[in-house]
Amino acid sequence: MSESDSQEQIAVVLPDGSELEVAEDATVEDCAYEIGPGLGSDTVAGKLDGELVAKEEPVYDGAELEIVTDQSEEYLQVMRHSASHCLAQAVERHYGDVDLAIGPPTDEGFYYDFDNLDIDEENLADLEDEMEEIIADDYEIEREVVSIEEAEERLADEPYKLELLAEFAEEGDTVTFYRQGEWEDLCAGPHVESTGEIGAVELLEIAGAYWRGDEENTMQTRIYGTAFEDESDLEAFLNRKQEAEKRDHRRIGNEMDLFSIQDVTGPGLPLYHPAGKTVLKELEGFVEDLNEDAGYDYVETPHVFKTDLWHRSGHYENYQDDMFIFDVGDDEFGLKPMNCPGHAAIFQDHSWSYRDLPIRYAENGKVYRKEQRGELSGLSRVWAFTIDDGHLFVRPEQIKSEVEQIMDMITDVLDTFDLEYEMALATRPEKSVGSDEIWDRAEEQLESVLDSHGHEYEIEEGDGAFYGPKIDFAFEDAIGRSWDGPTVQLDFNMPERFDLDYVGEDNEEHRPVMIHRALYGSYERFFMMLIEHYEGRFPLWLAPEQVRVLPISDDNLGYAHRVANEFDDFRVEVDGRDSTLERKIRAAHDDRVPYQIIVGDNEEDDGNISVRDRFEDQEYDVEIEEFRSHLEAEHDEQRTEPDFLQG
Amino acid sequence: MSESDSQEQIAVVLPDGSELEVAEDATVEDCAYEIGPGLGSDTVAGKLDGELVAKEEPVYDGAELEIVTDQSEEYLQVMRHSASHCLAQAVERHYGDVDLAIGPPTDEGFYYDFDNLDIDEENLADLEDEMEEIIADDYEIEREVVSIEEAEERLADEPYKLELLAEFAEEGDTVTFYRQGEWEDLCAGPHVESTGEIGAVELLEIAGAYWRGDEENTMQTRIYGTAFEDESDLEAFLNRKQEAEKRDHRRIGNEMDLFSIQDVTGPGLPLYHPAGKTVLKELEGFVEDLNEDAGYDYVETPHVFKTDLWHRSGHYENYQDDMFIFDVGDDEFGLKPMNCPGHAAIFQDHSWSYRDLPIRYAENGKVYRKEQRGELSGLSRVWAFTIDDGHLFVRPEQIKSEVEQIMDMITDVLDTFDLEYEMALATRPEKSVGSDEIWDRAEEQLESVLDSHGHEYEIEEGDGAFYGPKIDFAFEDAIGRSWDGPTVQLDFNMPERFDLDYVGEDNEEHRPVMIHRALYGSYERFFMMLIEHYEGRFPLWLAPEQVRVLPISDDNLGYAHRVANEFDDFRVEVDGRDSTLERKIRAAHDDRVPYQIIVGDNEEDDGNISVRDRFEDQEYDVEIEEFRSHLEAEHDEQRTEPDFLQG
Repeated sequence: MSESDSQEQIAVVLPDGSELEVAEDATVEDCAYEIGPGLGSDTVAGKLDGELVAKEEPVYDGAELEIVTDQSEEYLQVMRHSASHCLAQAVERHYGDVDLAIGPPTDEGFYYDFDNLDIDEENLADLEDEMEEIIADDYEIEREVVSIEEAEERLADEPYKLELLAEFAEEGDTVTFYRQGEWEDLCAGPHVESTGEIGAVELLEIAGAYWRGDEENTMQTRIYGTAFEDESDLEAFLNRKQEAEKRDHRRIGNEMDLFSIQDVTGPGLPLYHPAGKTVLKELEGFVEDLNEDAGYDYVETPHVFKTDLWHRSGHYENYQDDMFIFDVGDDEFGLKPMNCPGHAAIFQDHSWSYRDLPIRYAENGKVYRKEQRGELSGLSRVWAFTIDDGHLFVRPEQIKSEVEQIMDMITDVLDTFDLEYEMALATRPEKSVGSDEIWDRAEEQLESVLDSHGHEYEIEEGDGAFYGPKIDFAFEDAIGRSWDGPTVQLDFNMPERFDLDYVGEDNEEHRPVMIHRALYGSYERFFMMLIEHYEGRFPLWLAPEQVRVLPISDDNLGYAHRVANEFDDFRVEVDGRDSTLERKIRAAHDDRVPYQIIVGDNEEDDGNISVRDRFEDQEYDVEIEEFRSHLEAEHDEQRTEPDFLQG
Repeated sequence: MSESDSQEQIAVVLPDGSELEVAEDATVEDCAYEIGPGLGSDTVAGKLDGELVAKEEPVYDGAELEIVTDQSEEYLQVMRHSASHCLAQAVERHYGDVDLAIGPPTDEGFYYDFDNLDIDEENLADLEDEMEEIIADDYEIEREVVSIEEAEERLADEPYKLELLAEFAEEGDTVTFYRQGEWEDLCAGPHVESTGEIGAVELLEIAGAYWRGDEENTMQTRIYGTAFEDESDLEAFLNRKQEAEKRDHRRIGNEMDLFSIQDVTGPGLPLYHPAGKTVLKELEGFVEDLNEDAGYDYVETPHVFKTDLWHRSGHYENYQDDMFIFDVGDDEFGLKPMNCPGHAAIFQDHSWSYRDLPIRYAENGKVYRKEQRGELSGLSRVWAFTIDDGHLFVRPEQIKSEVEQIMDMITDVLDTFDLEYEMALATRPEKSVGSDEIWDRAEEQLESVLDSHGHEYEIEEGDGAFYGPKIDFAFEDAIGRSWDGPTVQLDFNMPERFDLDYVGEDNEEHRPVMIHRALYGSYERFFMMLIEHYEGRFPLWLAPEQVRVLPISDDNLGYAHRVANEFDDFRVEVDGRDSTLERKIRAAHDDRVPYQIIVGDNEEDDGNISVRDRFEDQEYDVEIEEFRSHLEAEHDEQRTEPDFLQG
C-alpha cells in the first residue's frame, strides 16, 4: 500500500443514516472507537450491509455499519456460535478422533455436525457437563489470521475442513482460526471474548444430516443445542419447546387420524384421511364464501404445464431448480410451482373492456416445490401444497379499493381464528420494473389503505419485489410463536410478460395491474398451524367430529341413535362399543370432540339429554331442542370454544 | 401335407353353440356351403373368434365362426373398406405418384392415409365424382395370394407398404392383394364382390396423421369418408353429423367461454374458465350431496406418488407406458393414473374392526394418462381428468347392500340429466384371482341387486375383469349417441396386494372386498357430453349465468340493478351496455341464459318485471316474488328446461 493511499478516507453509513468518515483500512472496532470509546470497548462484532462479521474485519466505502454489543439482538447469535465451539471441544475431549464439519448458530440455538462419531442421546448429559466446565474455565477466545498453507497443515486430519478451505482459498490468501484453550477451529466468527461469557447451555437432540445438505453426500451426526444469557431464559425456552412438542401437529395428526405421510407413497406428499379432509373442506368453504361475496370467480388450472409457460412467466429462469420437470416426447413439462401463470393464460384468452375490470380469479391451486428431502417435515415443509390463491387484474386506479377489500378478507380470516397480527408495507427496491408513475401511484394507494385500516404497520423501504410493492402479514399463535401470514403483492411484470391488456374508455389498449393474494397462504401450513394453535381442539365448525353420543348402557343404544338422528346435520357419532361410560368419556376427550351427549335411563325416560364439553363440565336435563339451537349458533358464528356450559 | 392328414376333420362352433365338422383345409366359405348352399353363395366374409376375415381364409379347430352376408351388421364395415380402396384408386388416378399408407374402415366410415399428396378440401368433390365413376364401372374386386418376393416387386415404389410387408414376412410366406380395374393394394381384406356393391359415398374431411400414430414419424395426409348402403342412410348420417357438429363442445365451450386448451400450457390439459368452473362446481356439489347422504367420507391424495406405490398396486407392470414418470434423486415418481392405490394406502394406515365397515372414501381425484397427442381432442380425450371416484372397503356379505346403494346413486344421476341407460353384468373370466366361493357369492349378490332394480340388463359371460365382476352402464344422449357410463367394479385383488384387513367378530383377520365406483366417471368427458347433450343450454341449476336483467333504456339501469339484487342468490348479471333491447335479447339468447328479465318504464312504475325464457316466450307484469319462488323450485328440483312460461 503506498503512502498516499494510506491517507485516503472512506465513509460508512450508521443506523441513524449519518455518515462516518474513517481511514481506508479501518476495522469495525476502529469505527466503534471513532463513535465513542465506550462503544469501542463494548464491541463484540459488527454488521456490514446486514452481514454479521468479526470486529476485526475492515469496513469498506459506502457500507451500512451496525456495531454489535452484548446489548444487541445479534449478541445471542454470536454467543450461540461460541457455544457450538464448546460443544465441538467437548466432543473431541470425550471422543477423540472425530471429523469436524460445520457448527453454526440457528434461530433457536446451534448445532455442530461430526463424522465418525458414535454417540447416543443418553451421552448428551456428559457432554453438557464437559461444556459447562469449559465455560467455567473461561478460556479466552482468540482470533488468528493464518495463511492457506499454514491452515492446510493444521487441518491435515480434517477432510471436511480441508474441503471448505479449498473453497476459501479461491477467495483470498488467508483464513481465520478461533482458539479456546487446547482447541481451535477454522471459522469466520464472530465470537464472544471468552467461553465464560456463554450463559446457560442445553443439548437437545441428535439427528442425521447430509454433509452440505446434499443427499448424495455422507450422512453425518448433528448435535443440536441451545444457549441463553441465563438459566431463566433457558427455562422459558424449554417450557415453550415442551408446549410446542405437546402441540406437534404430526403427533396430533396421527392421534386424530387427520393425515399421513407414507414411505410407499413418497416424501412430502401428504394423504388426507377423512377427518383431515373434513377440516380442509371447512377451511375451503370458509374462503369460498368470502371469495364469492367479494365477487371472485373460481377457475381450475392443470397441475402440469408445458414449460413454455414457465419460460413466458420467467419462472423457468429463476425457479427451475425447485421445479419437478420431465420430458414427454420432444416437449418439456413441469409441475406448477405457482398458479399465477395459469391464471394469466386464462385472462389472456379473452378480450376485455375497462368495464369488465376488476377480474378476480380464485383457485385452490396445488403447487409443487422440490425441497430437499431432509427439510421435509409433516405438513410444514412438503413437496405439494395447496394455496387458496387469488389473482386480480385491475385498472391502476382500482388498486386501492381492491386491496382494501383483500385486507378486509384477510383480517376477517385472522379474527375468525383469534390470531393477532402485524403488517408491513414493502416498497420499491433499487432494481425494479415499471415506471415511476405506476410505482408512486401504487405505493400511495397501499399506504392510504393501510392508514385507513387503523392497525399499526411498518414500512420496509426497498423491500418490495422487483415487480411491485406488497403488504405482508405476520401472526402469532396461541403460544406466542410468530408465523409468516398472508401477502398482498402487486405485480407490474407478469402483465408485460403475458402481454395482457384491456380496452380503455379511450378505446386504446392498456396494461392491467395484477394482484396476487392468498388469505391462508398454503392450506398445509395453515392447517398445521391451526392444529398446533388449538392443540387439535378445533372450534365446533372445524371439528372433524362435532358431537359424540355416549349411551350409558347397551339398553340406551337405540335412544342414542334416535338422539344422534336429531343432530344429523352435524358430524355426529354414537359410541356403541361395549365399554364403561368412564372409558367412553375418556375416549371422546382424547379424540378432542367438542361435545359429548350422555344418555342413560333417566334421559331416555324424560326424552332429554346430558351435555358434557371438553372442559369436563356437564349439565343434566337438557332439552334436545335447546342444545340444537345452541349448536347452530355456535357453529354459524364460528365460535372458538364450545360455550354451551360456559355462558 | 400327407394323405392321411388330408382326411382329418376339425370342428368349428356356430353362433347357436352347435358344432360343425369340416375338412381340415376348409375355408370360411366352405363352411357356409356346408351349412347350406344359399348361405354359401351369400357369403361375403367371416368372423373367426370375433375377427373379421376374408371368406377364403381357412378355419381352424375350435374356432367360433360367424358367416357375414350382406344382411350382417359387419357388412357395412366390409363395404366401407372397399370404399377406402375406391378412394385410393381415385387419388392415384388424379394425383399419380403418391405413397399409399393404410386405409381401414372405422366406426363411422373409413379413411386412407397418403404421403406426398398435395390436396385441399375443395378437391374432395372431384375425388368423390371419380369414386362414383369407379363404383358405376362395377369393377370386380379380386383377391390374389402372392409370395413375399412377388409382393416386394409389385410394391417397389411404395415405401410404407414395403415396411408393412417386412412385418407380414415374419408371419408367413404369402400375403394377399386386392385388385379392382387397373388398381391393386396389399390388403388382408375382406371386401365386397365388386365396386358396384358400394352404395352411397361421401368424402368428409382432410386431416394430418402420423404414420402408425407415432409423433416421431412422418405426418401424412388422411382423407376421411363414409359409405352407406343407400343415399337415405347417408343423408340420415350426415344430418346426425351436422347436429353433432352444431353441438360440438369445443365450439360451444369457446362461445360460452367455458374452457380453453392452449399451446403454451400444453396439449390435453384444459384450463377451466369461470363459466366452466361454475358448471363443474355444481356437478361436484351434486355428487357431494349424494355421497354425503350415502355415508361417504372425502379424502385427498396427492397427484404424484413414488412409483413404489404403483409396483405394489400392479399398475406399474401393466400401465407404465401410459404413465407420466420422472426421477427425483434416486427415486422414481409418477403422476397417478388411478386413485385406488392412494385410497388403499389410507385404508391400510389404520386398523379396522368389522363394525367399522363399510368404509366409503370419495375424492374428486385427478388422474393422468399419456394418450398419443394425435388422439387428444377437446375435453373428450385429455391427459389429465378428474374422476368423481369412490372406493369402498366392505365385508363380503355387504356387497349386495352397498352395490344397491351405488346403483340408486347412479340412476339418480342419470335421471337428473334425463339420460336413458342400459346395464350389463360382466362375470368371471377364465383367468382370474379369488376363490370360487367369493366369486359365486359376489355374482349372486350383483344379480340379485340387478333383478330387484327392475331395469333390463344383459349378462356378459366371462367379460369381468380378472380381479372381480362388474356392472357397466351405457347411456344415450339427446341425439341418440351412446356413451360409456358409470361402472361398479368389485375387486378381490387390490386388498391382497395391499394386505388390507379387518378384525372380524371371530377376532380373526379378514380381507375386505374393494368396490370401485364413479357416478359420472370423468368430469371432463361428462361435462363434454352434457354440453353436447344440452347444446350448451344447461338446466337452470347448472347454467353459468342463470338470469340476465335487460334494462330497456339507460333510465332503467338503476331499477335493473335493484331487481338483480332481489335475485342475488342466483347467478345474475345486468346487461348495462348502451345497446338496443333487441340486441340485448339476442346476446342473452346466444349466451344461452335460461331467463331474461326485461325492465322498462312500465315495469319500474309497477315495481314488477317481464320474464322471457330461451324459447322466446315472454310474460309481462310478473311479480318479482312470484318469479323468485318459481326459480327456487326450478333450481332445487334440478328441472331440465326453464318452465316458468311453459306450465
